[in-house]
Amino acid sequence: MPEKRPLITLTTDFGEADYYVPAMKGVILGINPAAEIVDLTHLIPAHDIYAAAFTLMCCYRDFPTNTIHVVVVDPGVGSGRRPIMAMTDDYSFVGPDNGVFSYIYQRERINRVVCFTAEHYFRQPVSSTFHGRDVFAPCAAYASKLVDWRMMGEEVSDPVRFNIPAPDVASATRIRGTVIHVDRFGNLITNITSAELTVDLIRAGARVRIGTRAPARVLTHYEEANPNELFAYFGSAGFLELAAPRQSAAQLVEGRRGIEVEVVVP
Amino acid sequence: MPEKRPLITLTTDFGEADYYVPAMKGVILGINPAAEIVDLTHLIPAHDIYAAAFTLMCCYRDFPTNTIHVVVVDPGVGSGRRPIMAMTDDYSFVGPDNGVFSYIYQRERINRVVCFTAEHYFRQPVSSTFHGRDVFAPCAAYASKLVDWRMMGEEVSDPVRFNIPAPDVASATRIRGTVIHVDRFGNLITNITSAELTVDLIRAGARVRIGTRAPARVLTHYEEANPNELFAYFGSAGFLELAAPRQSAAQLVEGRRGIEVEVVVP
Amino acid sequence: MPEKRPLITLTTDFGEADYYVPAMKGVILGINPAAEIVDLTHLIPAHDIYAAAFTLMCCYRDFPTNTIHVVVVDPGVGSGRRPIMAMTDDYSFVGPDNGVFSYIYQRERINRVVCFTAEHYFRQPVSSTFHGRDVFAPCAAYASKLVDWRMMGEEVSDPVRFNIPAPDVASATRIRGTVIHVDRFGNLITNITSAELTVDLIRAGARVRIGTRAPARVLTHYEEANPNELFAYFGSAGFLELAAPRQSAAQLVEGRRGIEVEVVVP
Repeated sequence: MPEKRPLITLTTDFGEADYYVPAMKGVILGINPAAEIVDLTHLIPAHDIYAAAFTLMCCYRDFPTNTIHVVVVDPGVGSGRRPIMAMTDDYSFVGPDNGVFSYIYQRERINRVVCFTAEHYFRQPVSSTFHGRDVFAPCAAYASKLVDWRMMGEEVSDPVRFNIPAPDVASATRIRGTVIHVDRFGNLITNITSAELTVDLIRAGARVRIGTRAPARVLTHYEEANPNELFAYFGSAGFLELAAPRQSAAQLVEGRRGIEVEVVVP
Repeated sequence: MPEKRPLITLTTDFGEADYYVPAMKGVILGINPAAEIVDLTHLIPAHDIYAAAFTLMCCYRDFPTNTIHVVVVDPGVGSGRRPIMAMTDDYSFVGPDNGVFSYIYQRERINRVVCFTAEHYFRQPVSSTFHGRDVFAPCAAYASKLVDWRMMGEEVSDPVRFNIPAPDVASATRIRGTVIHVDRFGNLITNITSAELTVDLIRAGARVRIGTRAPARVLTHYEEANPNELFAYFGSAGFLELAAPRQSAAQLVEGRRGIEVEVVVP
Repeated sequence: MPEKRPLITLTTDFGEADYYVPAMKGVILGINPAAEIVDLTHLIPAHDIYAAAFTLMCCYRDFPTNTIHVVVVDPGVGSGRRPIMAMTDDYSFVGPDNGVFSYIYQRERINRVVCFTAEHYFRQPVSSTFHGRDVFAPCAAYASKLVDWRMMGEEVSDPVRFNIPAPDVASATRIRGTVIHVDRFGNLITNITSAELTVDLIRAGARVRIGTRAPARVLTHYEEANPNELFAYFGSAGFLELAAPRQSAAQLVEGRRGIEVEVVVP
């Protein structure tokens, strides 16, 4: 039986057509030939920190413990933003300190956040535009070789985080939530989970209001929806989503990240 | 020399932009860290079982024996369709029982088809929309650890298969075939191979008729074709294909899957 | 610690939707199960040898020594063009002899270029259209198993190379260069590096002229550019590039590969 290899995942907005992603992989494998690299995705919309944060949140826990998740969606590259590593008992998260790990800070007990300062762990010379290759890839690779974080940087206490709205259970029959992500099909993913919108409430006829549309039914399967019907359902990441058959729900209701939704129970 | 790692391939219609594919990989590597995962493609057109079946057919035999091929093109997810594993001496095929392995049933001696029923091998809770992550990935991972199929499910005798037309050698100078796939360039792939359309028939001037067009020449190379010429050639998967230089043959002749073609020899 | 696995990278124009790339991977892993395969990219524009050569140049050195780089952008497949392997102390480069390794010949000391002639190392039967699977993948896999090149082919002395213009330092204040690549954002990458356009020249107010436009400033960061401003900067591959904020510089100046640029210092 082969031994367990250190796992490193990559999430970027670099696309798949250029040399950026393979350059990162080459650097990682040069430092740690035993590393196993898994692509999360490289098709994050350019500079969309929120989309990267959401995508990571939806699957980081599906990876085995000790996986190092690297995210390079980095509009501030070359400016003063810090390169960091957030560490939990189970995972490390490597990337720019721009809020991209906000969901992790919210959901995990963070042991520490390290700012990489020891430049001899960087690929030299460090370019001003490609820290994915020059900073994040080598630091993740050394971390996967179990280099102590104290050798690589210093603890910081104030990592950047963006505001994550919590669903508001206003009353037994009213829940207020927010759209936290719009996927490329135009589905609107909210921050409401089955902890708020329970099976009992759904059975009691709960509906979901967004904008000025008639409140949407909560369905179990796509197939139950009527043509042109805006409906709600729980997606595989555990969040209540709004969708419409073969249409963009986002277009239908002019929905976007940050828009409020409301669950009402008759 | 490192030992041979168990190989698992993935074919889906999930695209490459979302968390679906990495979630499957994380689940697999969590169960079997030794697994080596190879992407077949994740760009199968949504719900297109036929395209998935064709793509798998064209390359599954290029993989070493004991490879586990996972296909998740699953329009019936959440309904009653069975999750299955078809087993041959050389390969296992894991996916929904919706016909996606029809070509395998036709070409391989199937030792058995197993329906996965032992839910403690599934990722819990099982979502209603993402059995790729919750059922197929974990079952493939356990199979790659050589868990006995008897532990994971029960044999079934009636897997779903779609009709696969066989070429009809009507006479020594007439072969009837069918378009079985249209690729994204609009090339029309037929079910006719060099077993039917032999070198001798080509030398004798065989031509291929589709629709109302003048019968097409059978060429060895793309480069021999004239501008706007509809022509036929044997593609790298072994099938007779119809194409046109820098054009979609499918548009040119209004061709689509299921259309008949005829080889005529003067 | 797992042992170091032999690394093979793949660069093709096959796209990611079809069976071509996984077929190559299956063949490689069938011959050398220990091989670690890394995708450079499969989105090279169809038949664009120059783009493949450029992409490879930008990252091949980021991979550890002994990596085998396979490039299959092969408009001449099926014709007489030779299948070759260029070998340096650090890397091997496998692909068609069509100039795709021109930058390698320019930058590396080549120990030898081998033409693969021993057909028992090929996948049989060799198709006329898919040497990626039938010739290059198996030969790279055998090379990764340290099969001696003398067993696989013969040395050749005249590999095909395309002309690579060198920047011309016409005087202390005038450098002539050439656009060697246009990326998919329309950025124009030139052959000028910081060896020619030094920090001192930039400090002295060097500007870059292309076409009939007013000479462009040389900036350190994208963010310094004004809207609609054509500007120059050093990209992460080390070359001087011309860009425009949120626009295609190529469209703006009707630039394309081969166009001349001139650095002028006041």
